[in-house]
Amino acid sequence: MKETMIKELTKVELKNPVMIEGLPGLGLVGKIAVRYLIRRLGAQKFAYIISPHFPYFVLVNKKGSVRLLRGIFYFWRNEKGENDLILFTGDSQAQTIEGQYEISNKILDFAEQYNVKLVITLGGYRVETKEKPKVIASATSRTVLERALKANAIISPMGSPIVGTAGLILGLAPLRNIDALCLLGETRGYLPDPKAAKSVLEVLLKLLNINVDLSGMDEAIIKAESMVARLQKVEERRILQEELMRRSEDKKITYIS
Amino acid sequence: MKETMIKELTKVELKNPVMIEGLPGLGLVGKIAVRYLIRRLGAQKFAYIISPHFPYFVLVNKKGSVRLLRGIFYFWRNEKGENDLILFTGDSQAQTIEGQYEISNKILDFAEQYNVKLVITLGGYRVETKEKPKVIASATSRTVLERALKANAIISPMGSPIVGTAGLILGLAPLRNIDALCLLGETRGYLPDPKAAKSVLEVLLKLLNINVDLSGMDEAIIKAESMVARLQKVEERRILQEELMRRSEDKKITYIS
Amino acid sequence: MKETMIKELTKVELKNPVMIEGLPGLGLVGKIAVRYLIRRLGAQKFAYIISPHFPYFVLVNKKGSVRLLRGIFYFWRNEKGENDLILFTGDSQAQTIEGQYEISNKILDFAEQYNVKLVITLGGYRVETKEKPKVIASATSRTVLERALKANAIISPMGSPIVGTAGLILGLAPLRNIDALCLLGETRGYLPDPKAAKSVLEVLLKLLNINVDLSGMDEAIIKAESMVARLQKVEERRILQEELMRRSEDKKITYIS
Amino acid sequence: MKETMIKELTKVELKNPVMIEGLPGLGLVGKIAVRYLIRRLGAQKFAYIISPHFPYFVLVNKKGSVRLLRGIFYFWRNEKGENDLILFTGDSQAQTIEGQYEISNKILDFAEQYNVKLVITLGGYRVETKEKPKVIASATSRTVLERALKANAIISPMGSPIVGTAGLILGLAPLRNIDALCLLGETRGYLPDPKAAKSVLEVLLKLLNINVDLSGMDEAIIKAESMVARLQKVEERRILQEELMRRSEDKKITYIS
Repeated sequence: MKETMIKELTKVELKNPVMIEGLPGLGLVGKIAVRYLIRRLGAQKFAYIISPHFPYFVLVNKKGSVRLLRGIFYFWRNEKGENDLILFTGDSQAQTIEGQYEISNKILDFAEQYNVKLVITLGGYRVETKEKPKVIASATSRTVLERALKANAIISPMGSPIVGTAGLILGLAPLRNIDALCLLGETRGYLPDPKAAKSVLEVLLKLLNINVDLSGMDEAIIKAESMVARLQKVEERRILQEELMRRSEDKKITYIS
Repeated sequence: MKETMIKELTKVELKNPVMIEGLPGLGLVGKIAVRYLIRRLGAQKFAYIISPHFPYFVLVNKKGSVRLLRGIFYFWRNEKGENDLILFTGDSQAQTIEGQYEISNKILDFAEQYNVKLVITLGGYRVETKEKPKVIASATSRTVLERALKANAIISPMGSPIVGTAGLILGLAPLRNIDALCLLGETRGYLPDPKAAKSVLEVLLKLLNINVDLSGMDEAIIKAESMVARLQKVEERRILQEELMRRSEDKKITYIS
Repeated sequence: MKETMIKELTKVELKNPVMIEGLPGLGLVGKIAVRYLIRRLGAQKFAYIISPHFPYFVLVNKKGSVRLLRGIFYFWRNEKGENDLILFTGDSQAQTIEGQYEISNKILDFAEQYNVKLVITLGGYRVETKEKPKVIASATSRTVLERALKANAIISPMGSPIVGTAGLILGLAPLRNIDALCLLGETRGYLPDPKAAKSVLEVLLKLLNINVDLSGMDEAIIKAESMVARLQKVEERRILQEELMRRSEDKKITYIS
Repeated sequence: MKETMIKELTKVELKNPVMIEGLPGLGLVGKIAVRYLIRRLGAQKFAYIISPHFPYFVLVNKKGSVRLLRGIFYFWRNEKGENDLILFTGDSQAQTIEGQYEISNKILDFAEQYNVKLVITLGGYRVETKEKPKVIASATSRTVLERALKANAIISPMGSPIVGTAGLILGLAPLRNIDALCLLGETRGYLPDPKAAKSVLEVLLKLLNINVDLSGMDEAIIKAESMVARLQKVEERRILQEELMRRSEDKKITYIS
């Protein structure tokens, strides 16, 4: 494996598939959203991607088994609608600049192979807010962007960069005549943020005209918020203790000198 | 896209073209100068360069559209003079050593394709001065250097390095029998410096015997100077506040201990 | 040598060989264990690996001779048992992400060439403990893991990463239908830890049903422990002196001001 | 230029050539020594090496001309002795691990092409001493090492690493059946050290049975020593002033609070 490569587990026939990408990033927004969809829809694994640009460790699974870091492609057949889905998520972004371009291109190779016409990338957008997270959209074509705005996304401010795979896919897709849309949920980004992920999913599902019950995310949201509150208290106590420690050390040294 | 590549939008016939390069660098001098020329001359886009050595993010454009970081080649037909121009600028320098060499070579490939005999690279030269910026010249041949000196550039001090694409193009051009000249405008380099860019353009235009009205840069120069003054005040206030803060924190801790 | 490469010194015939890997890592556990086996078993060198991803220096040997950093493969014929051994150790891990993947794959290329069905990687597992080090196991198959547990290893906690070659070999082996097992000895990891290496060897030898006298490690263990005690004292004294120095400097400055 | 490459300026016939390498490194010992030889012997440039692994800037020469960073090969015909010389020096070492291996291999490619049987690499060896620098030798064969010891070098302590091109050439030469010897002059390494370079040349010239007057180095040695003395005073004054500054700032803040 000198290069990033995709291993296919099975061949499937898909109807007008849309690809949805959500790798780890700010607030884990994209990954949380895609993982939730995979579970709720019962999407099935059918290919994975491995790369020498992922970090050089493996993860121990349940029962002591081990696996490489990877990205996984799932498919879902949409019985009632127009578009089947290919859902992509994984353990990590690439660790090098060249790797970021290489992996984004491999994902688009796979999209081309399945005749995907639209890729939607999901992620977080850093904002200091405690209100319901808005969803920021940008796209490779006006038509696609309009669909997002109708689904309650707002247009991205000009000049703001989109870092990593979620961004590069939008930059590289037009070279292959594929449309791409990026949906970023507002997040403070310190911790996994299921609330931002829910906002992103609301826009995504409305846009794709797919029904998925999102109430299953609410428990995670409550947990995350109590976690934030708890961490703030821990942090405040830590700062106080450090100061006390420093004062008391200063005193000890006084005795020595 | 495993390597840097050039995409041509259209084929053009050019008469003895000179290529002018100005990527972001010290004080943004080269980029500001080339962008001003492109706008004033109404030069037209005809090719662009993309690379896995550029940073791995995309930029959101106006109206929520998105694009890869890139360099762009523009051409301008010189009705009254001898040389047409190819103007090159872009978003970023390469982020790796190997990428710097690769991109400089790709730019020279393109120059060769259009039978360019002279490439002029523009940039900034760090100096602590508030006087009218001088323009520092170095070149691959004595003849070319003389042309710059006649146009009021001064000769570069020996031993000073020219970093990045503006420099490597001069190093690599002789391997292809292309002449190259580097013009660096003196700048403190902290902020975009249109004043240094104007000095560089004065030399460049005199050398190429092209008339371009540079008064359009004066507004930007005034803005930049008031910006510098404003930032200095902000910085002074910040330092003062930090000191005050530190003192008041010291006092609080005194109450605790 | 643009890539990692393996040089074979001699061809050998091996009976159902198991490969054992121990490169430098946490507490040098893997390397100490494999080196002990090589010496005790009288295993013979038969191939080595060199790579542009190893650090760029050479080592001076005894008598002023010099050598590249490298990994070495040894073989041992097991007269009384089922499996011959291939033992692998070396000077260094790869210094780049891509190098880590490249070297792990080269080791597996060599394993395939000798029809190895099982690779066992050895290393350290960071724990703050002073008790007899436990041995943590993870594996690519349930059957192999069971063998380790029967030999008194315990199952690895879920989610813990295995960094470097010892981990990547487990991740990459299944792509070639090779089984792999990782045995990590608990270590504080500050210093070479022969005690953890001995624990790992106890499990390994029981699992492979090979008899090797491990009492030769006890001297190294005692030395290592007295070294730890000595270093702690040195460290305490250093901290004290620094404080005293700082106080006395503060005084000198007082005289100046 | 995607890879390191050697450009030949002219073809020459050489009699049993020995290659001598001295790139910038600790105390610039190797480079100073090789440059002195080149000047004194009147050796002639006949090839150079350029590489995308050198730093990405160019240098301005005298009279405003510019050049890439590079290494240069010179030859010298030895009218009275057995061995002609190929002398190699340059501006910089490679900036990446892979580049270090690539450049060392290219140098050896060139050595092979000229049927070189012995490469001697020169450099510095860090020691805190003010005595006449000793010269530390290591080699790929016992025979070559003996020649160095007879010429008053001492044998390198075991385990000490030789970093960079001077070391890697010794590691890689045996793969091509070329002998190699490394001579390192003791140096504190803070500044260019012509005294260490002179010691290295004394051993080298005796070993090669070549007469070169080394008294031309004495002026540089005296300059270097007075420079060291001057810098020490500057450093002492700087530390003092910083302390005074800090004290006076502390006072100013007192007035504010």
